[in-house]
Amino acid sequence: MTGGGPASLGPKADRDSVRRQNLSLVLRAVHDEGEVTRAGVAARVGLTRAAVSSLVEQLLGGGFLTESGKTFSGQAGRPGTVLKVARTGPAGIGVEINVDYVTVSVVDLAGTDRVRLTEHRDHRGAPPEDVLGHAAAVAARAARSAAEQALRPVGVELALPGLVSVGTVRQAPNLGWTGVPAREVFGRAFAALEPGPGGQPLPVSAENEANAAALAELWFGGLGRVRDFLYLTGEIGVGGAVVLDGELLRGAHGFAGEIGHTVVDPRGPACRCGARGCLEQYAGQSALLRDAGLDGDAGATGVEELRRRAEAGDARAVGAIEEAGAVLGRVLSGAVNLLDPEAVVLGGIYRELTPWLAAGADRELAARVVSGLWPPEAGRLRASSLAGDAARGAASRVVRAVLADPLKYAEHATM
Amino acid sequence: MTGGGPASLGPKADRDSVRRQNLSLVLRAVHDEGEVTRAGVAARVGLTRAAVSSLVEQLLGGGFLTESGKTFSGQAGRPGTVLKVARTGPAGIGVEINVDYVTVSVVDLAGTDRVRLTEHRDHRGAPPEDVLGHAAAVAARAARSAAEQALRPVGVELALPGLVSVGTVRQAPNLGWTGVPAREVFGRAFAALEPGPGGQPLPVSAENEANAAALAELWFGGLGRVRDFLYLTGEIGVGGAVVLDGELLRGAHGFAGEIGHTVVDPRGPACRCGARGCLEQYAGQSALLRDAGLDGDAGATGVEELRRRAEAGDARAVGAIEEAGAVLGRVLSGAVNLLDPEAVVLGGIYRELTPWLAAGADRELAARVVSGLWPPEAGRLRASSLAGDAARGAASRVVRAVLADPLKYAEHATM
Repeated sequence: MTGGGPASLGPKADRDSVRRQNLSLVLRAVHDEGEVTRAGVAARVGLTRAAVSSLVEQLLGGGFLTESGKTFSGQAGRPGTVLKVARTGPAGIGVEINVDYVTVSVVDLAGTDRVRLTEHRDHRGAPPEDVLGHAAAVAARAARSAAEQALRPVGVELALPGLVSVGTVRQAPNLGWTGVPAREVFGRAFAALEPGPGGQPLPVSAENEANAAALAELWFGGLGRVRDFLYLTGEIGVGGAVVLDGELLRGAHGFAGEIGHTVVDPRGPACRCGARGCLEQYAGQSALLRDAGLDGDAGATGVEELRRRAEAGDARAVGAIEEAGAVLGRVLSGAVNLLDPEAVVLGGIYRELTPWLAAGADRELAARVVSGLWPPEAGRLRASSLAGDAARGAASRVVRAVLADPLKYAEHATM
Repeated sequence: MTGGGPASLGPKADRDSVRRQNLSLVLRAVHDEGEVTRAGVAARVGLTRAAVSSLVEQLLGGGFLTESGKTFSGQAGRPGTVLKVARTGPAGIGVEINVDYVTVSVVDLAGTDRVRLTEHRDHRGAPPEDVLGHAAAVAARAARSAAEQALRPVGVELALPGLVSVGTVRQAPNLGWTGVPAREVFGRAFAALEPGPGGQPLPVSAENEANAAALAELWFGGLGRVRDFLYLTGEIGVGGAVVLDGELLRGAHGFAGEIGHTVVDPRGPACRCGARGCLEQYAGQSALLRDAGLDGDAGATGVEELRRRAEAGDARAVGAIEEAGAVLGRVLSGAVNLLDPEAVVLGGIYRELTPWLAAGADRELAARVVSGLWPPEAGRLRASSLAGDAARGAASRVVRAVLADPLKYAEHATM
């Protein structure tokens, strides 16, 4: 019994919803193919040429697609113009706030990093409001650069080194944050600098930074067909993320992936999390630098110096990285035995240090992974590709939302 | 272009396949409800009364369902007879082969353990053929007991303490097995004793024992609405399984869940896996017994004695279990940080020792799980229910296959 409302509402709403989904289907087809004709899109999505043409017109009008006169060879039928996703228009802003830097990335619909700003600054001990306010200022500068490239940011995602739940940082030991409403605080500061189109502030979301980096690796990295992997990111802390069958493992409460607090030695040094002997105390940035005879607080320049020394064959530098690698290998062997992933990807500062880390870790993985599938020659432990990082991953999550429902992000209500 | 074949083949095949699926739908509805009228089934599965009646007749004829004259109150419409899954007919045989015992369970369609045989025997050092031949003999005895109860086993599943891949035990350190084709060897021995209906041997499959036990816990245990958990089973080794959203995590190669070889101390005692200081060397059955001053090889009677002493307040027994619990807690905190499950369930010998294990483990979990969600009062670390074990889980996997496609398991081709 549906009462006396307008009879056409249901079916009309259904038609609208189907068209909305089809707009996304077509946009994603062009996104995934890179360059494709209307006929190619029709073949891929299984809609008629006529339906695809109508959807394409709407997406061209909304600024989501562009076309060029270039004909596309190797395709049956008459040559068509080639469609691509727009290099202007909707974009996502990703903001990685880490312990000693902020990186902002603006990504366009094609997934390209169009603006990238990094500022180094030690956030330890600073009030969360200051850190988030500073990040908002960097993000606002990036938004203005994006606008100069005719990009139109439609949302911001924060990537934060801690447990994030519905916009709030529940726990970020290395920042010293507990219960910080990061989304709200950042959103207020950002809206004051960038009021948004028509005074409507951009939506802000928040994610764990290792999760965002793992997604960047999945989407843009060199993993090929690998869809099950563990991602580790070396920073002041050690972040982690688990990807199973191409999806992030979130866990029962959204806190999965926290490998940095795996115990290495229960009587080891105190960790900022309150426990003792966590992985971070052996393989985090400060521990690595100190063990190599450098200043533990030297930050990015210290890491650069460490890599230079290791490349030059400095025994202490090489020894420190290999020893951290062995610890990492022991912890990873436990995670590998538990999860049986296809690969482990090392990001953050580990990316540049992988040759020496692997020298220490591979032995442990070969000896301790019971399946015997992790000998060094299998190459399952690998450096993340340069493309993968948390800010880009966070920005790309915003872009993925556009691809999933372009109509929601159209500039003009009349698209 | 579909050529000149019989035009009705496609649609006929489609109709057959739909009916096949609907038979399963109805059988599972009765299984899940326990007792239900035809009208109740129709309401649940969304088919017409007439369609349900026809499907029910076929399932009654095939011996999958029974009905009683009992009317079912609290249901609208005229009282109907009550349907239940049959307590005779199709059944599954589960065979857990562990390091010092074999347990066979025969489970009926309702999931009830109808036959259970356990034989204690040390399998270490015995040739795999002997162990599997002995297990086949116990399974054959169980099959005969089942037949006396008018049960008709339709398949056997082995549950084995190691890495199992397509019927082969790739690695079972505590049995000393490597590359043992367990399914084939067991199948041959079992077929010689139980030729099967019409001389057609029963199909045999193989699964990791902790996986089978975790499924038993999921299906029959006291987990309530928990669908994400880590399952640990204490035996000579320590087995593990990960259940995410009600499904077993298998991993990229089928070897996920192996928590027993997590490193506790890289300079610790040698483990049968070839590495040093694995969890099993601290919290496996032999280590527990030895640390309590008992004979490490005393098996089930030793564990019983350990529990008795702990209950009597024997300081050494309590201390040994609590210390093993602390080690377990440290390892578990790493797994919990990585997976963020709702609960950890302790099975095998840990089930009876949980009060003392938890005393040691809870402190570590509270201190080391960064989400702060694991204080002792949260009760997330718990003993498995008595119902849960590997043989029953394995037998139930056979039964689930029957529920998924009853027609395939019908006794008469004419059902």
